[in-house]
Amino acid sequence: MVQDNYQINGFRFNALAAGIKKKGAKRLDFGLIVPDVPANVAGVTTTNLVYAAPIGVMRHNLKSGQCSAIIMNSGNANACCGQKGLDHQMKIIDYLAKEAGFRANTIIPMSTGVIGQDLPVERMVDSIPELARGLDYSKAEQVATSIMTTDTRPKIVGSEIELSNGRARMVGMAKGSGMIAPNMATMLSVIMMDVRLESSVLDSMLKEAVEKTFNRITIDGDMSTNDAVALLSGGAVDSRIIDATSNDIEPLKWLLEDMCGKLAEMLVQDGEGATKKARIMVKNAQNAQDAKRIAKTIAESPLVKTAFNGEDPNWGRIIAAAGRSGACFDPDMIDLYIGDIKVYSNGQLASDDWEDSAAEVMKNKEFDITLDMRSGVSEDYYLTSDLSRDYVSINADYRS
Amino acid sequence: MVQDNYQINGFRFNALAAGIKKKGAKRLDFGLIVPDVPANVAGVTTTNLVYAAPIGVMRHNLKSGQCSAIIMNSGNANACCGQKGLDHQMKIIDYLAKEAGFRANTIIPMSTGVIGQDLPVERMVDSIPELARGLDYSKAEQVATSIMTTDTRPKIVGSEIELSNGRARMVGMAKGSGMIAPNMATMLSVIMMDVRLESSVLDSMLKEAVEKTFNRITIDGDMSTNDAVALLSGGAVDSRIIDATSNDIEPLKWLLEDMCGKLAEMLVQDGEGATKKARIMVKNAQNAQDAKRIAKTIAESPLVKTAFNGEDPNWGRIIAAAGRSGACFDPDMIDLYIGDIKVYSNGQLASDDWEDSAAEVMKNKEFDITLDMRSGVSEDYYLTSDLSRDYVSINADYRS
Repeated sequence: MVQDNYQINGFRFNALAAGIKKKGAKRLDFGLIVPDVPANVAGVTTTNLVYAAPIGVMRHNLKSGQCSAIIMNSGNANACCGQKGLDHQMKIIDYLAKEAGFRANTIIPMSTGVIGQDLPVERMVDSIPELARGLDYSKAEQVATSIMTTDTRPKIVGSEIELSNGRARMVGMAKGSGMIAPNMATMLSVIMMDVRLESSVLDSMLKEAVEKTFNRITIDGDMSTNDAVALLSGGAVDSRIIDATSNDIEPLKWLLEDMCGKLAEMLVQDGEGATKKARIMVKNAQNAQDAKRIAKTIAESPLVKTAFNGEDPNWGRIIAAAGRSGACFDPDMIDLYIGDIKVYSNGQLASDDWEDSAAEVMKNKEFDITLDMRSGVSEDYYLTSDLSRDYVSINADYRS
Repeated sequence: MVQDNYQINGFRFNALAAGIKKKGAKRLDFGLIVPDVPANVAGVTTTNLVYAAPIGVMRHNLKSGQCSAIIMNSGNANACCGQKGLDHQMKIIDYLAKEAGFRANTIIPMSTGVIGQDLPVERMVDSIPELARGLDYSKAEQVATSIMTTDTRPKIVGSEIELSNGRARMVGMAKGSGMIAPNMATMLSVIMMDVRLESSVLDSMLKEAVEKTFNRITIDGDMSTNDAVALLSGGAVDSRIIDATSNDIEPLKWLLEDMCGKLAEMLVQDGEGATKKARIMVKNAQNAQDAKRIAKTIAESPLVKTAFNGEDPNWGRIIAAAGRSGACFDPDMIDLYIGDIKVYSNGQLASDDWEDSAAEVMKNKEFDITLDMRSGVSEDYYLTSDLSRDYVSINADYRS
């Protein structure tokens, strides 16, 4: 990967090893993103009732509609730390604001890592001057690396689109490979664009894109206290302004959804211990709620996910998961496909020779499972990973 | 264990290896329970929309209120087999009815095993005469063995209680170690008592007991197409009759709930790959629904269950699971205990020296997790197991 790919006009980056992560002070764990001028911003945060201190601050600061910096760390979630957690978070923000001349309420914090441990706030504050001094247009990938926890690789995407008056560019990064589940499913993600839209427009664009992408992935059904996505728009002094009524809004929406989709796929691919990525598609359901329920229940079923891991086309588990989803359907009506092999139809096996070809499909790293409900026109999908011995190993041993 | 412990007046048992299980024809996989005279009966079956042929037949035959036989098999669920599945089931029942002189609509079938494969119906029918000939009062444990799938041991309990006019005895058996989840969570279970109650009384007793016990355990959140519990009452010609208004009803209710609770605990203890049994208790919640939601969400969280497996007192995952349960509470109000160690209180760690003692608690095979919501008077609980590498191994490789 050529680092230049992730440059985007108007945004500088830096990351360093501040010793926030437990083991080895040499790993990047503290990152900073700074637009040349305050960017317009929108954000989406966890729906978990228990949320971390940085989430509370982020929600408050999003109200300004402006972002002069995003400060991120891994190794510590600063969640469930009571008033002290908030005090620590504000200390970091206030210091950065003073050091760099930002308004404190335009700084957005994001944290990920262990819950319930105090931030090493002095070490972090001490690192801020160096972090700010080293800002550079070419260091996006380092920031993407600095927010990794159990991720095996940084996740960053750059893409462009032709608008009516020249090209627009978007760069997005994300982290997360466990504790991922729908309803603001996304761990941490920052997406930047080099054109400037009003924050109210960004807000509706982002919500729509997140619902269709990050909220359609599941690794373990758990939802974090720290999930957050921020969308920054127009970091340069001369960023082109795109009006809310412009014809360019639609292509930008498309580009954003495409980028969120790509990041979401990268998250599932890097799911903890994941060896498979499966797209669970539900078609022709009676209504949208049922389509979503069925896809979600299958995507989260441990029995389905272990069968994926074993490359076992155990379709009975898929049908059984659909049956307990709470959706209403006639089991004798539905068709089930593994890849394009029709496995189940009219309440029984679709053919006698399905097994070898279905098993063949499941040997792939990516495959589709399609449930045709044959009772309406609604459809939905979820991306999921398999459940492996490694998932258990990673999570049984994570903290220690 | 002395086999005599599981004798109960008025009920005979037999089991044999009919070659229904894939590997090795020598394992018991076909069982029969026959009361001396038709017993009164009540039952609870899966709420999964996709249910097996035997479930459909059981539901129909329960309407008679009478049971002259329970015929059970492992190795094949007879689910998702369309009309053929029903035809196979009826063929077995009709044959047994004719052979033994029973009314077909008083025979209750139960099946467990792989979904979507045709029953080896000829082999099963051929085995029925031998199965019926060998019936004996001392073979309850063989039947409990014949319904095992991934279970590592048979689950059978006998107990007695003093009533106003002599003792009453109950014997119960159950199978199940995966695909276990609330809402008729129980795989297969048969409970017999040697006194005779009306089936309407049995029905309400059983529903209440199941709700408090089997419906409070979870191993993997999956619900089977075949879950079924039957309660049989009065198998002997001279079984004492207990009137619906008798003072003996309450002690019998207690005995039934106690038995279901013991069987439920055995199921969790034998959960696939389980090394730990944890009781998740929620106290002083705002309402009953919230208490249940919180306990259930924690009990089903893969992150919590892997932490149990790693003996890691990662309380942040427990709080985070409560937070996404959908229940309404103030995170700063709640107290969390691991065993009797108060870990979290007032929105932060309860003390500095919690960790070693909490880790010590989690080294036990059984421990309690208690969440005191401090906002009401409702309480609920779930029993859960840890999530181990072995769970994945068992379920990735089960079918093949």
